[in-house]
Amino acid sequence: MKCKYWSKQLFDLVPYTPGEQPKINDLIKLNTNENPYPPSPNVAQLLQQFNIGDLSRYPDPNSALLSQALATYHDVEIDNIFIGNGSDEVLAHAFMAFFRQDKPILMPDISYSFYTVYCDLYDIQATPIALKEDFEIQLADYATPNGGIIFANPNAPTGRAICLAEIEKLLQVNQDSLVIVDEAYVDFGAQSATALTQKYDNCLVVQTFSKSRALAGLRIGYAIGHPRLIEALERVKNSFNSYPLDMLAQASAVASIEDDEYFKRSLQTICATRAWTEQQLTSLGFKVIPSKTNFLFVAHASIPAIDIMTFLREKKIIVRHFSKPKIDNYLRISIGTEQQMQQLINQLQAFL
Amino acid sequence: MKCKYWSKQLFDLVPYTPGEQPKINDLIKLNTNENPYPPSPNVAQLLQQFNIGDLSRYPDPNSALLSQALATYHDVEIDNIFIGNGSDEVLAHAFMAFFRQDKPILMPDISYSFYTVYCDLYDIQATPIALKEDFEIQLADYATPNGGIIFANPNAPTGRAICLAEIEKLLQVNQDSLVIVDEAYVDFGAQSATALTQKYDNCLVVQTFSKSRALAGLRIGYAIGHPRLIEALERVKNSFNSYPLDMLAQASAVASIEDDEYFKRSLQTICATRAWTEQQLTSLGFKVIPSKTNFLFVAHASIPAIDIMTFLREKKIIVRHFSKPKIDNYLRISIGTEQQMQQLINQLQAFL
Repeated sequence: MKCKYWSKQLFDLVPYTPGEQPKINDLIKLNTNENPYPPSPNVAQLLQQFNIGDLSRYPDPNSALLSQALATYHDVEIDNIFIGNGSDEVLAHAFMAFFRQDKPILMPDISYSFYTVYCDLYDIQATPIALKEDFEIQLADYATPNGGIIFANPNAPTGRAICLAEIEKLLQVNQDSLVIVDEAYVDFGAQSATALTQKYDNCLVVQTFSKSRALAGLRIGYAIGHPRLIEALERVKNSFNSYPLDMLAQASAVASIEDDEYFKRSLQTICATRAWTEQQLTSLGFKVIPSKTNFLFVAHASIPAIDIMTFLREKKIIVRHFSKPKIDNYLRISIGTEQQMQQLINQLQAFL
Repeated sequence: MKCKYWSKQLFDLVPYTPGEQPKINDLIKLNTNENPYPPSPNVAQLLQQFNIGDLSRYPDPNSALLSQALATYHDVEIDNIFIGNGSDEVLAHAFMAFFRQDKPILMPDISYSFYTVYCDLYDIQATPIALKEDFEIQLADYATPNGGIIFANPNAPTGRAICLAEIEKLLQVNQDSLVIVDEAYVDFGAQSATALTQKYDNCLVVQTFSKSRALAGLRIGYAIGHPRLIEALERVKNSFNSYPLDMLAQASAVASIEDDEYFKRSLQTICATRAWTEQQLTSLGFKVIPSKTNFLFVAHASIPAIDIMTFLREKKIIVRHFSKPKIDNYLRISIGTEQQMQQLINQLQAFL
């Protein structure tokens, strides 16, 4: 279906495939790492009270109230914050702003699969660095000349985290290029590099409201870094779309930040459910990669991942599988509610 | 504030400057062509009843319900529709998808100033074509070899429209490249080229919910064209951000389309207010360019635009001025409510 009106760079572009969002009743959806709990009741209240007449006005192009709320929350300045339409947009802008370099960028061979799509989109060369055994990222392997470095911490789809000391070491030996730490899942138990952005001007941290804050439906992501890095992102954003976040998303994000107690409580619940699920899966013969995220990456000792996935799907439980070398016998299972995970374990027990 | 971590293409990038959104009470804001009336009450009802728990899920990446509603509304098929986060994002994707060509693209020398910013962002060459006297776009001037053509109809900031027969002629003589018709303001009285997209595969129409539908605060734009053109846009979008529109924006847009009576009534009111304002301004000595939009582009016979703008600002009325050759003695005045335009005229009478 290509045609002569296309820019020729599009012909070989292979877009990212998001996890499916099936419209099936009573589905237990454990395939896209969404939060099983609703966002803070503050968000509901805000929407109830929102003055609809305001929607005819453009939103604040700079999301200033949200930037300030995030700056306060992370103990940084407002000019350390960049806001985007989900962390996917923030990452896309960052690839364009920083990674169009003469040398290839470095990234783990197994990580968020959108990274290589951005490279194709912006004609960026990338060198994949193999994960170690058991899917560990070894940052010592990244200390070679490069046009930039990106990795997710904790990594996806593996769930493994690396410690801050390792990241700081990398920032020190890699001062000629930017290091992006994608912290989409950091709130579920890993250490954030946010503090390092105040010490190193080559560190950009990216976070999202889609997982821990249960606002995937509203598309809010952000970056934290040195003001010169933020300025580059603003320059790209303002050459692309001045108003990336709508009014309701901006206001809801602020409402979420203001309810820290609810946030922490729901994180605790999810982490407790993760621990229980890990234990159950292990006793069912699964190998479970240690997770600091809201998902588990698991492989069964004897039954192929595809067979398990197919069986679960018949039982209306959806998990995610990646047809990629090294990980094609693994399943990524999002942490749902206690009840949902109990149903998952019940079904697996029956199957195995 | 540039730094070594930037991609070098950013160094000379000059971003678009959106109209200001000042936080001043009792301001009469006539500078960004927003709709002075609220969106359909259907939108308010929808937000009141929205199940907040749904926000923890990703939105439909394809905005299928909204695409279908737009297809029905415009009497086209769903695969003729592409949805984006405001028409700015749709335009940005279109520039990337279609205009990275060997030959320069053509556009009016006076038009939406974001077009040249996209060109800089994606390294696209553009040849400006001068407007005729009184700011008319003469499409006969565009029948030269080119990598694509874009113009706004009605044009901004002039407000002038061209007729469909002229556009159809251009599509016929320009079959080697794509023609984008940016119809942000078309609902206020111009003829839409939507029907031409069903006849010509080199025509892409772009529209928005930000003006006529009073939903600037929610960021909804779309394109209509041949499925092969839509596929190109999808390919870029899915290599950039799978989920451009949040749940509330998608649902609100559908709610707006469903209330056609309210939509038509508010358009009529705005057009009537425009006619009244035009008459008043003319009798005050202004030259008023014939407008098919929700704004008027005006110059006074004897008083410089800057002086008028400065005076109005002191009176808490904000209008827009562009410091550009040919139009720097003009002001662009959005059509507000009847009462707001009465206050504008009162102030101008006092000043002149």
